[in-house]
Amino acid sequence: MIIVGERISVIAKRVREALIKRDPEPLKELAIQQVQAGAHYVDLSIGPAEDDGEELMDWGVKVIQSVVQAPICLDTTNPKAMRAGLKAHNNTWGMPLINSASGEQERLNTMMPLAGEFGAEIIALTLNERGIPAMAEDRCVIAAEIMGKALECGVPMENIWFDPLILPVAYQQDKCKESIRAIKMFQELNDPPMKTIVGLTNICQGAPKELKPLIIRTFLTLLMYEGLYAAIADPNDKELMAVIKTTDVLMEKKLYAHSYLEM
Amino acid sequence: MIIVGERISVIAKRVREALIKRDPEPLKELAIQQVQAGAHYVDLSIGPAEDDGEELMDWGVKVIQSVVQAPICLDTTNPKAMRAGLKAHNNTWGMPLINSASGEQERLNTMMPLAGEFGAEIIALTLNERGIPAMAEDRCVIAAEIMGKALECGVPMENIWFDPLILPVAYQQDKCKESIRAIKMFQELNDPPMKTIVGLTNICQGAPKELKPLIIRTFLTLLMYEGLYAAIADPNDKELMAVIKTTDVLMEKKLYAHSYLEM
Repeated sequence: MIIVGERISVIAKRVREALIKRDPEPLKELAIQQVQAGAHYVDLSIGPAEDDGEELMDWGVKVIQSVVQAPICLDTTNPKAMRAGLKAHNNTWGMPLINSASGEQERLNTMMPLAGEFGAEIIALTLNERGIPAMAEDRCVIAAEIMGKALECGVPMENIWFDPLILPVAYQQDKCKESIRAIKMFQELNDPPMKTIVGLTNICQGAPKELKPLIIRTFLTLLMYEGLYAAIADPNDKELMAVIKTTDVLMEKKLYAHSYLEM
Repeated sequence: MIIVGERISVIAKRVREALIKRDPEPLKELAIQQVQAGAHYVDLSIGPAEDDGEELMDWGVKVIQSVVQAPICLDTTNPKAMRAGLKAHNNTWGMPLINSASGEQERLNTMMPLAGEFGAEIIALTLNERGIPAMAEDRCVIAAEIMGKALECGVPMENIWFDPLILPVAYQQDKCKESIRAIKMFQELNDPPMKTIVGLTNICQGAPKELKPLIIRTFLTLLMYEGLYAAIADPNDKELMAVIKTTDVLMEKKLYAHSYLEM
């Protein structure tokens, strides 16, 4: 399982302040912590950053890659900031991951060409102007439209990571199974199978705080069973990482050893 | 998910001593603890008990049902003890569960007629004289043979609970997926689907003690995803029960409420 470390996010107060003040230390610390704990990508979420997005993303990418040897998941809805991040990215340890395109025309038409131009990987959310479809089949229809646009832009299928969008179990319990089904169905849209990714925190939105880690861990096990390729998650959540490793062992994706948790 | 509480077992020293001394208190205490924690059946494992199996099983069943309103899973390879347990059982709270028959001719020919005679439920292990087949398909062949014998003995299909037999991940990692596949395939042998059950502790045999609960919890989630009907497990393992409830919520088998763990 590929882990995209989610902790460098504008939503976290400490990160937001560091981004505003251009204080590199919190970003460096969080990047190192996450990669040491097993993150394969480091997410850098700056929000829309309408005023200074280009300069901010350029700065953030360079700060993070000055301390970790990992590709970055560039997380912004601002196309100019995205371009700046792609330019600043050091590709030595892997291509950057654009977070994200979707079936919404404007977003698709700005982000997908960037993926083609820079040879980047790209997360594609299966929603459109009408929202997130209830049924997995309808999310696949959007996925197919996104694949068409990718072909137009010269983005190879293996660079697209489909995200079915997880809805909170507390509000839309009946949709959990649909997300799992979508993970299975997305893979069947191509051969070799399409890559898939989810943002895990959505599943427990609105649930009591003490239940959140339990819901996240259990849901991730089910998604992994259906072949989930990657998750945006907290690699410093030790119990979550233990469950990921155990699921990989039980599914025979990782060799069993008495010390498998330490590997 | 149906839970068969596993704690009254001859393997546990305290229980073994209580069985020998005919001391009812430990059995009563363990029965109450398990049913209060959510066990639907209480397993009473006395081993082969060759000398005094009949009297011991009769005593044990009556002791347990004097304090809990639950059916008992009668766990012995001794057919005379099994008959005594079936006779002693109070069916007010459900029929007893025979643990177990298998594809081994002698065991099948002694246990299945008892299930027919007493209208009992019966666990059927899908192994035969040649051992546990590696592939799920071959376990289904044994399951079909057992179903044939059940028909002969007048045991309805809904009274059979198939157990694929779980092999330890530490020794036979490649067999974990086969057990999960078997759970799926057993159900397809009949309409309505056949019931399934597993003994969970086998999965972590030989693994370091600190890993065992984690392996059990994660494996159970995967089995439940494929429709597992019941598990022989420790209902007093709070983290296990939390994962069972969470999986049921995510699979929409149990309604979400902020307090679902307490229900």
